[in-house]
Parts: sequence; structure tokens; C-alpha cells
Amino acid sequence: MASPNFRIAIVGAGQVGGATAYAMILRSIATELLLVDIDSAKRDAQVSDLSDATYISNSGTRVRAATHHEAGQCDIIIITAGAKNFLAEISILHMYRHIGMIRNVVQAMSPFKSDSILLIVANPVDLLTQIAQEVSRLPTAQVIGSGTFLDSVRLRGLLADKAGVAAKSIDIHVLGAQGDSQVVAWSTATVGGIPIAQSIPPSTIDQKELERQTKDRTKDIVRAKQATTFGISSIVTSICSSIRHDTRNVRPISHFQPEFGCCFSSLVVLGRKGITREINMSFESEEQAAILRSANELKETMDRVHENYQD
Amino acid sequence: MASPNFRIAIVGAGQVGGATAYAMILRSIATELLLVDIDSAKRDAQVSDLSDATYISNSGTRVRAATHHEAGQCDIIIITAGAKNFLAEISILHMYRHIGMIRNVVQAMSPFKSDSILLIVANPVDLLTQIAQEVSRLPTAQVIGSGTFLDSVRLRGLLADKAGVAAKSIDIHVLGAQGDSQVVAWSTATVGGIPIAQSIPPSTIDQKELERQTKDRTKDIVRAKQATTFGISSIVTSICSSIRHDTRNVRPISHFQPEFGCCFSSLVVLGRKGITREINMSFESEEQAAILRSANELKETMDRVHENYQD
Amino acid sequence: MASPNFRIAIVGAGQVGGATAYAMILRSIATELLLVDIDSAKRDAQVSDLSDATYISNSGTRVRAATHHEAGQCDIIIITAGAKNFLAEISILHMYRHIGMIRNVVQAMSPFKSDSILLIVANPVDLLTQIAQEVSRLPTAQVIGSGTFLDSVRLRGLLADKAGVAAKSIDIHVLGAQGDSQVVAWSTATVGGIPIAQSIPPSTIDQKELERQTKDRTKDIVRAKQATTFGISSIVTSICSSIRHDTRNVRPISHFQPEFGCCFSSLVVLGRKGITREINMSFESEEQAAILRSANELKETMDRVHENYQD
Amino acid sequence: MASPNFRIAIVGAGQVGGATAYAMILRSIATELLLVDIDSAKRDAQVSDLSDATYISNSGTRVRAATHHEAGQCDIIIITAGAKNFLAEISILHMYRHIGMIRNVVQAMSPFKSDSILLIVANPVDLLTQIAQEVSRLPTAQVIGSGTFLDSVRLRGLLADKAGVAAKSIDIHVLGAQGDSQVVAWSTATVGGIPIAQSIPPSTIDQKELERQTKDRTKDIVRAKQATTFGISSIVTSICSSIRHDTRNVRPISHFQPEFGCCFSSLVVLGRKGITREINMSFESEEQAAILRSANELKETMDRVHENYQD
Repeated sequence: MASPNFRIAIVGAGQVGGATAYAMILRSIATELLLVDIDSAKRDAQVSDLSDATYISNSGTRVRAATHHEAGQCDIIIITAGAKNFLAEISILHMYRHIGMIRNVVQAMSPFKSDSILLIVANPVDLLTQIAQEVSRLPTAQVIGSGTFLDSVRLRGLLADKAGVAAKSIDIHVLGAQGDSQVVAWSTATVGGIPIAQSIPPSTIDQKELERQTKDRTKDIVRAKQATTFGISSIVTSICSSIRHDTRNVRPISHFQPEFGCCFSSLVVLGRKGITREINMSFESEEQAAILRSANELKETMDRVHENYQD
Repeated sequence: MASPNFRIAIVGAGQVGGATAYAMILRSIATELLLVDIDSAKRDAQVSDLSDATYISNSGTRVRAATHHEAGQCDIIIITAGAKNFLAEISILHMYRHIGMIRNVVQAMSPFKSDSILLIVANPVDLLTQIAQEVSRLPTAQVIGSGTFLDSVRLRGLLADKAGVAAKSIDIHVLGAQGDSQVVAWSTATVGGIPIAQSIPPSTIDQKELERQTKDRTKDIVRAKQATTFGISSIVTSICSSIRHDTRNVRPISHFQPEFGCCFSSLVVLGRKGITREINMSFESEEQAAILRSANELKETMDRVHENYQD
Repeated sequence: MASPNFRIAIVGAGQVGGATAYAMILRSIATELLLVDIDSAKRDAQVSDLSDATYISNSGTRVRAATHHEAGQCDIIIITAGAKNFLAEISILHMYRHIGMIRNVVQAMSPFKSDSILLIVANPVDLLTQIAQEVSRLPTAQVIGSGTFLDSVRLRGLLADKAGVAAKSIDIHVLGAQGDSQVVAWSTATVGGIPIAQSIPPSTIDQKELERQTKDRTKDIVRAKQATTFGISSIVTSICSSIRHDTRNVRPISHFQPEFGCCFSSLVVLGRKGITREINMSFESEEQAAILRSANELKETMDRVHENYQD
Repeated sequence: MASPNFRIAIVGAGQVGGATAYAMILRSIATELLLVDIDSAKRDAQVSDLSDATYISNSGTRVRAATHHEAGQCDIIIITAGAKNFLAEISILHMYRHIGMIRNVVQAMSPFKSDSILLIVANPVDLLTQIAQEVSRLPTAQVIGSGTFLDSVRLRGLLADKAGVAAKSIDIHVLGAQGDSQVVAWSTATVGGIPIAQSIPPSTIDQKELERQTKDRTKDIVRAKQATTFGISSIVTSICSSIRHDTRNVRPISHFQPEFGCCFSSLVVLGRKGITREINMSFESEEQAAILRSANELKETMDRVHENYQD
């Protein structure tokens, strides 16, 4: 009879991995937290520092160092390796380095526990999610990327300040391929479920400027403090909570879209088995076209990557 | 220099008051919780029982017995007296008894601290909220009733089960005068901000049946266990958290509507000063008409009450 | 592969069971909460009322009605049936009625999942814990009673007020057979780990009076509000959290003591497998003698019960 | 009428300040969190990153950039500037640089709100706490240093693993001047309030080795990841929670000891007004002598510092 422990592995014990582990401990999301890093000194230092936090916090979570193989047997595996420059502009060289890194990491963990959820936080998130899915051979519902969830939450925060309401009372989604071509679904934005125009005069919303702020915020943060840590780790903690407690929250999450042949973010329901269903959206035609463009660009990049890796 | 304590008084130490105090303690909403009841033995027993809970919980809240006068100096005052039969059908006799009770209780607490928020949970909630506002002479933004918030949450729960999503990902609002004439704003219902029809086939939603279940649930609960306690106390705790942390959540809350001359529920933003703003809604004409009818009935009843109390 | 759900059953959906379920929901202790009661109307009303609470709370817990048989397959099974008069003086007649009830309930749940923990909250707690252990045939480490944990917490609270420190910073234990013959281990009392006399002048502590207040508090509460609910449900929630998160807290808990042939409270370590170890204590001789007396009385009563049930 | 907001300022927006702010947000300790740093780009990036966390977390805390002057009007002011190398060995040069930094920072914040609590996390913590007290002119009960609290918690964790119990069930205190001459009060160590020898065979405890591990852990962490962040930020969050909720926890905290003429750690009770009382301890004579030595060394250093700064 299996024990009802819930185990989460964090691969990459840098600043994003560390902050994510800390939030998990303070929220008691996992029974056991496994830290994996090829730099064993850094990994062990994070384990020591985080253990100190468990001794004083009222946490039900224990933290320990682990191997890639052990990580592959966890309920959720979070890959933050390379996440430090999360969302920052990256060169082709960076891209191939990260792709190689993800391939190695996922292979080192294989074979996975059959119901493991693989969560990619590293960048470029959509491409890496697809690579992880292909190499892991896990069902597509179980391989997800943080995608545009952080962008959506940020835009919500910016609008919340304008409307004088809680960020939680606003629904607005950034969709498509995370990065320069991501698309804001302005036509579906609501405050308390009511179209946003009832709460914020449209004349006071500069859509282009808000989209720019949403995108540039990461670069600004990375420039000043080398990494985004708290925003992204909060997103990851929220995703893990939805999975662990099977809460079925609706979120913009990167995952494989069979009709486009690549991974990007659209609205899904998150639960214990990963993506439990898709939410259909009907957009204005301009938004629809932008998402299509964003997906096609991604597909082309992915095709080039596939060519380079076929052998 | 005033201390940054946050004090909440609960008037009525029965089952609803007790469960509300318990949830507040487990959530550390207040620094100090004051229990008020004319039955001092029951009040002191609740204080003893709740204090035992504070000794073992990790709560930052202390609980003590208090007078009506002390309650009037708190940051939030919750009137649960008479709330036991919350939402159940009540006779004219009951109505006048509750009106008399509210008048006495509010007078006994007057004059209030100028920024106190008065929250009415007793029934019939819209009428009693109006009475409380008139007698307390507090600004209308500071006198609110739980209204249709619990009905909205319930309906959300029923739909969440159908859609296979979290209740938190659904926005649907029950509005108007709480009770038989309350109105569901089906036209604005969303899942993850997207019109509900994209997530639940309209043919599978029997609107009348869901409205009936929402209304009857209270009666069913009261019949079997004498009182609704946990649902309503969770609602009250949520409202108090919005006020205490100034979170600006959008909620359906009963309050004075100057254009109708009476209190009923519509969407508002909740913060430290009570109602910080209204959310405009545009309904289908049928929904609009139903809310108007609901408001007019209430206004007539209120006029009769005013006649009886004028002197 | 078993799912990492953690399921808790509450047998007895009255006031203690309801308040316990509510605290579990607010603390997200279980993935699934199963309510069991022979009065199916009351049970279903509690499920409805508690479900309303889950829709608005940020809880990872779902609640549903269940059979005794389903309860026997849960990770923790809490028996609160008959707990309403918890700690109140009970007659021989009451005792035999409760013994019969426990036997029936435990038999209806058998056979148990092999690693289930059975937690008895009903009264007289030590006798019923022993009966439950015998009938369930579960290992003694997995059958526990709330015992003197609530009494210990209360006494701690009374002393905390005197010392001007947090209840959590005081260690003092009430031990032996819960009720009139329970024993306070004054000789081991500490504040912040330091003997209590360094923090509270011994002349200001009336030990007999504090022992009396600790014992009488339940009777006073029951007299005024029919049941103790919040204190005992907080204790039960704390025990379940220790088990669920395998936290290894040291607690005074009723369990079978082989050297005495009966169940009563002594200090143990609580974890996922129930009692993971005993904490040895060296008392003053007078305290030791009192615990022995308390145990012997209990053993005699238990022998009489065994005679009545042998056939 | 003052608003019941609770405001905490963090001076120093580096890794320790950032992690502390993050824990405060996840725990909703403050209503408003003010970040102060002379490097305004780093400060603003932390505010952006932490704000993203508030948008997705269920937090009642808002974060914003602020000036030193605004910080001086907060309920708690945490000085983490220079905390990065927390506990690491520091040279005389470092010491004078940190002393100069603390003097400047405290002067820039003066005059303080009369009931502000000043919490020093920077290093060498005991000296800097004394400097802060002298420059701020706040009452000694309101100027405290994290002192040996983290060391105590760590040692507790190491022993908890040996005893197979929760760290929270162990009381053991590291006292005196934080660093090489700190003293472990082994004679008062308890598990569940019971002398530790009853739970862990004394022959299996290598006191010197455990003391060494406690001290060296910081150096090991700093060597591998440049800074301790999660352990120390959890300690700071715990201290702020005790103050904010006036919980009166007993903790080893650095503060001015009039009989010794310098600041070092001993057991105190923490509440809304800072240190509300001292806990007297009677040690074995050897422990007493070691604390005396530790205090005297510190006093001598402090006298030299005073000579250098008198003018």
C-alpha cells in the first residue's frame, strides 16, 4: 500500500529553484521536497538553508538533496535549470544550450513514474516544454510550461491598480507563444466577471503601453537583480497547489496543441492529472490571427530544432 | 498614537456567531475578537471554548467577552443575533421581532467609532441592513449585509461541479433582494473569464432547477441541523478579510441603493472603508426587470416598516 | 499506483464532528473528508453546509457523505459519536451505552486499511480507546484517544495568562486517566524550556485551584452551550496534522500501556504511523503514585467491562 | 483616528531583504511593506518582483519603495543591510564599515515613531544592535537583534533528527555573544518539556561536534551560495509575527543587558512593545562562566568602538 506522501522535485537549485522551494515550504505544498543540481555544493547549501527554514516555520514539508533518477519518481518535477534569465531575450546560442540542457536533464530522469507531472519553468518555455514532452514520452496532459501565466498575472496587477480592485477579481489572459509575439485577449477581459469597460473607462487604458510594461518588466528586473525570483516562484507554487489539491483552477498554461503541432499557452483546467480539460475561447478576429501568427513562428523554430536533432 | 490592533465584535454568541469566531481565529483575521450576547452564560461559555482553540492553534487572535458599548468601538461589528434561521422563510411576526432586536442592538452600541463597519448577517438581511444604517447614522458605505453572497457562492459551487473546474474560477452573481425574489445574472456568467457556454453546454444547465437548489439549500440544512453555520461563517470571514486587508475584492453585497430607496445586493468593491465603489453591470432586459421588481417589493415592505416605527 | 490523496473520515456528524470538519477544511488537512452518521439527514445537511464553506475558502479539501465501510479505508478515522458531552461526568449507564456504540461503529468499519489510524474523541475516552483497539485489531500504535491533550492545553493557557507568555512557550502535561483522577506533572513544567518557577513565583500558583479550573471548564461550557466544540476540534485537527505531515510532535495522548493493561495518556511522539515512540518521564514520587492509582482504577473498570462482554 | 494598518520597513533590498519580504508576503504579516535601499534600481526591481508575487498569492500585504525617513515611521524596521555575509567571519575593517553603515542608516531614519521596533539582522549583530540603540535613542526594549535565535533553531533541528521528534518539540538555547564565543545551555535542554536525556541517550550526543556544526553551517552556506537567505528570513518573519500579533513567545534575542553594559542574546518574551520581559535562567556554573566571558569580550570591543566614535 503506497504512502500518501506527495513529493515534488526541483531540478536546478539556483535562485529560482531556491525561492520556489521556500514558497513551497511556507505553504506546505509537498510532504517531501527533493533538490537536484549538478553543482552538489550549491545544492547542499540550499538544502541546509531551506532546512533551517523548516525548523522554525510551521511547515509539513521536509527538504533533501536527490539524484535525477529519484526526481523522476516524484509526483511533480519542476525544471528551473536555466530559469534565471527567465523571459529575458535570448540568442540562438542560448536557445540551443537550453535545449541541450533540457534533453540531458529529462533523459537523466527517465523513465518517469507514470503519473508524474513535468513542469518547465526554463526559457524559451514553449520550445523547452515540447522538447521535454518528446524526450520524456509522458502523456501531453502531464507536460506543462509556466508559459504566459506570469504575464497574465502581471497585466492583471497593472489593471487592478487602475480599477481599484483586487488582482484576483480581474480575469485577463495573455496567450500564445510566450515572449515578443504573445497576445493579450483584451476582448474577454472582465472585472468581477463583468466586461472591463464597466469598471475602467476604455479611454484610460493604453493597451499597447500595458502590453509593453508586461513584457519589459522581466528585463527590468533581470537587469537590476540578475534574476526574477519571487513572481515566477509564486506562479510555480500556485500551479503545484492546483495539481496537488486537484483544485481545477483555470489558467493560461503552455502545453502541446495538436492542431498547431507545437506548445504554447491557452486556457486549461489544472488538476491532479495535469491538464484535465481545455477551455474554448472565442476571440475577436484580430486576436485570433495574432495567436495563429505566434503559433506558426514557433512551429517553424521547432521544425528547425527537430532537423538539428534528428539522427 | 493609536495601536495598530484590529478589533472585530460579534454580536450574538449562538451557533453562527461561534462558528464565525472560530473561523476568524483559525485565519487570524482580527487581533482581538469581542463576543457580545445578552445571555452572559452562553457568551462566557463560547469565550472559554474559543480560548481553548486559541491556545492550541497558531492564532494571533485573542477572544474576550464584551459589552454592546465596547462593540461600538470596534473596526468591524458583525450582527449575527437572530441569524440561526438565516435565509429560512420567516413570518411577519418574526420580521418585526428581528427589526426590533436590530434597533435595540444598534442603539445599545451607539455612538459608533466613526470608521466602524457594520455587517448584518441576521435575517431578513436587506431590511435589517437598512434599519441598521438608519439607526446607526453611519455612512451608507459602512453598513453592509451579507445579502446574496452565500447564494452566489453556492450557485458557483453547483456549476463548478458540472464544469469540472474550481468554484473560484467561476463568476456568477445572485443579485437583488435576498430570498424568493433574488435574481441570477445568467447573462454575465463566466468560467475563467470566458462566457460559461464555452465550458458547459447550455443544454445541460437547467437554470430554474439550479436557482431552486440555491434557494432551498438553506431550508434543507436548517431542517436537519437547526442552523446553517459553516457556509455563512465562511462568507462573513471572507468579507472581514477584504475589509481588514483592504483587498478590494468584487462581491455581491447588500447596501443602500439611493436610486431605489432601499438596501439590496449588487456588485461592489470591498475595502478598509467598507464599500469603496460600485461595479456597473449591463443585464439582459429580463434580468433588469426582475431586479427592479425585487427592489420595488422590498421598498414597499420598508415603507410599511417605516410607518410602524414613525413617532 | 496509489494516488497520494489523504482521506480522513469523521464518524458522528454532530456538533463536534461538524466543527472538526470545518477546522480541517480551513486548514486543508485532508484531500477528502468523509462524513459518516446513522442519521443521514443530519449527515447530508452537514455535508451541504461544509461544502458551501469549501466553495469560498481557499481549501484543498473536498467533503462528502460516506458509509462506515468507506470510513474503514481512510488514512485517519475520527470517532466523535457521543463526543457532545465530552469530558462531562457520565453515569454507568452512559458508559455502557457509549461502549456499545463504539463496538458497533468499529465493527461496521472492519476490516480496516492496514495503516489506518483510529482516533477516539468520544467519552470516557480511555475506556473507549481500549475497546476500539480490541475490536479493530489494529496495532496499538494506530489506535489513540484525545485523552488529556485538551486538559494540558487548557492548563497551559491558564498559566500563560499568569506568566504573560504565549501558551506555545509553556510545557506542562496532564497525564493518566482523563477525568477526576487525571494528574498534573507540575514537577516538569517549563516556560521556554526553563523551570516554571523562574517565570512565575510559586507562591502565586494555586495548583489545586488551577487543576479544578482545568477539569470544570468542560462542565461549565456544556452547561451553557450543550457541547464543547471549538477546543476539542482544534485538538483533533492538531493530532491529524501531526499524523498527516508526519511532524513528530510530542503530545499527551491516550493509548494502550502494556505494563498497566489499559489505555491512558502519557507523552508520545505522533507521526504518520500513529505513535512512533514514547517519551520517558521521571516524576516526583507523589505524581508517580497518583498516575499509578489513576491507572489501577481504570484497569478495574475495564476488567468489569470485559466480564460483561465475554461470551 | 489612526488606521489599524501595520507597516514594516526593510532597509537593505538585497538577498536577505528580498527573501524576508517574500516570506512576509506569503504570511501576510504586514499590511504594507516598505523597501528601502540606496541602490534605487535594485530596490525598484525587488518591488516589481515582489508585487508580482502579491498579485497571485492570497496576500493581504502590499509592497512599495520608500525613503529612510518613511521607514522611521513604521511599526517595525528591519535592518538587513550588510546581512548577506550574516554570521560569516568578519574582519575589523568589515566591522567598522558595518558600524558606520548602521550609524548612517539609523540617523537617516531619525526621529522614529515613538513605538517603533528596530530589528537588526546585519552582522556583527550584537555590536550593531547596541550602536542602533544608542543612535536611535529608542527605549532598549524596542531595539533588538536576531542574535542567536537562528543558531538555537539550527541546533534544535540537529537534535530533532537524532530524537525523531519535531524541532518544535525541542527547547534548547544558544546564548551570549553571537559567534565564536556563543554558549549552548545544554543543562536546560528539553524534549516535550522533559530533560533531553530521557529522549536521547547522552552518550550519543557529541556536544562539541553539534556546537561546531551549528556555527559552521552559515560559513558553509555562504561559501556555496554567497548568502544565507531562507533560514535567517524565516527567523525575522517569526520575530515580526510575535511583535505584530503580540504573541509573547519566549525567544533568545540580542538586546541591551544593563548589568553587563552591552548587547547579547538571552531569553526574553516578545510582544507588541518589543521585549516585554526577561526569563531568568539558572545555569550550570560552567555555562554561566562562559556567558560571562562572552559578554566581557564584547564589552571590551564595544568600549574600543566608543573610543573611536567619541568626539
